[in-house]
Amino acid sequence: MHFVLDVNETLSDLAPIGDALERHGAPRVLTRAWFNGVLRDGFALSLQRQAPPFLQLAEESVRAVLWDLPAPLDRVDEVVDDVMAVLGSLPVHPDVAPGIRSLAAAGHAVSAFTNGSADSARDLLERAGVAQQVPQVLSVDEGSVWKPHPEAYAGAATRLGAAPTDLTMVAVHPWDLDGAGRAGFRTAWLDRHHQPWPTSFSRPDIRVRDLTELAATISLGS
Amino acid sequence: MHFVLDVNETLSDLAPIGDALERHGAPRVLTRAWFNGVLRDGFALSLQRQAPPFLQLAEESVRAVLWDLPAPLDRVDEVVDDVMAVLGSLPVHPDVAPGIRSLAAAGHAVSAFTNGSADSARDLLERAGVAQQVPQVLSVDEGSVWKPHPEAYAGAATRLGAAPTDLTMVAVHPWDLDGAGRAGFRTAWLDRHHQPWPTSFSRPDIRVRDLTELAATISLGS
Repeated sequence: MHFVLDVNETLSDLAPIGDALERHGAPRVLTRAWFNGVLRDGFALSLQRQAPPFLQLAEESVRAVLWDLPAPLDRVDEVVDDVMAVLGSLPVHPDVAPGIRSLAAAGHAVSAFTNGSADSARDLLERAGVAQQVPQVLSVDEGSVWKPHPEAYAGAATRLGAAPTDLTMVAVHPWDLDGAGRAGFRTAWLDRHHQPWPTSFSRPDIRVRDLTELAATISLGS
Repeated sequence: MHFVLDVNETLSDLAPIGDALERHGAPRVLTRAWFNGVLRDGFALSLQRQAPPFLQLAEESVRAVLWDLPAPLDRVDEVVDDVMAVLGSLPVHPDVAPGIRSLAAAGHAVSAFTNGSADSARDLLERAGVAQQVPQVLSVDEGSVWKPHPEAYAGAATRLGAAPTDLTMVAVHPWDLDGAGRAGFRTAWLDRHHQPWPTSFSRPDIRVRDLTELAATISLGS
């Protein structure tokens, strides 16, 4: 099988962003407002076919959530710089490296497809020691639409030289799996926190706890 | 002139949502994560032409942000019900009723156009005592795309019987004004918190503090 991994939050652990916010006196739960804001704006601009690079919206969203606090912080520029530096050096979740190694060792193809930059994704995989197992790292940066725009998935399938039905999108985000599914991909949901599936989105084909469980499940089924 | 007012957060004050979260032991800053999450999902599904009613995504987003807390809350269903009840009875910002009255008294047409339901928007205007001044309340509910999808604005202009260039979209959200501007509307940004304009979005034509300042500015200019 050919697995296509989402990157932000699916592979990377955003907890250090919360740590950075907390160091500066901001609540760590702002991380979710920040990340939802990045996606909100990337999707809004994808509706206009004008989506800019992820890091640009990421920085603007940090600024916006800090501005929104009941008690404004001093030295906002410093906090923004710190959060952006942390974003560029996030770790992966504990299941990521063993999961990717198991999938590759079992003979499956593993690629990555991100709304972020391909360079950031490659750096993340390097730091986790699994860059070799993920030879193809695709980004939406080359277009002007982000996932879950249908053209993003169609473009990724073309670049991977595969029919959508031969690809399995792997992600923690319902909006990503919904979009991939509608574009013809098979879909696997990593549900690390045992969340309820939001009923507005089409259901994933597979639901597993994490990448090591995905590898184990696929191995049993093949 | 013909002003088209966004509703959620542009007219309504979301602070009571924060109060409700706080009553249940959740941080009030979750309000931003919740609202950004609603928009994220509405926009994602608009990319698929599958956007469901606002209240459906609003409820799913409350559940998601509560699930995401480091320390899970007891009685999540109760919190969700409480937040949804508060969402249905929000007040408007202090500038809203006097601003709308001034615009209408000066002979301008005032309409509303919301990603929420038309009924919720009408109720909000009723509670604020300005329903009479806003005879046309439009919602995206009739379609399967939310603002800022280009078709949402085009559809609103058609229903208002006006050319987009004869309409001025009024909102607090850059993504809404960006979309309206690209669809040919004139745009007025209500910047109640003196925020920096995010550079990824096309700039609004007018920037004012709130609706009373908009009415005063327009009156001076006419």
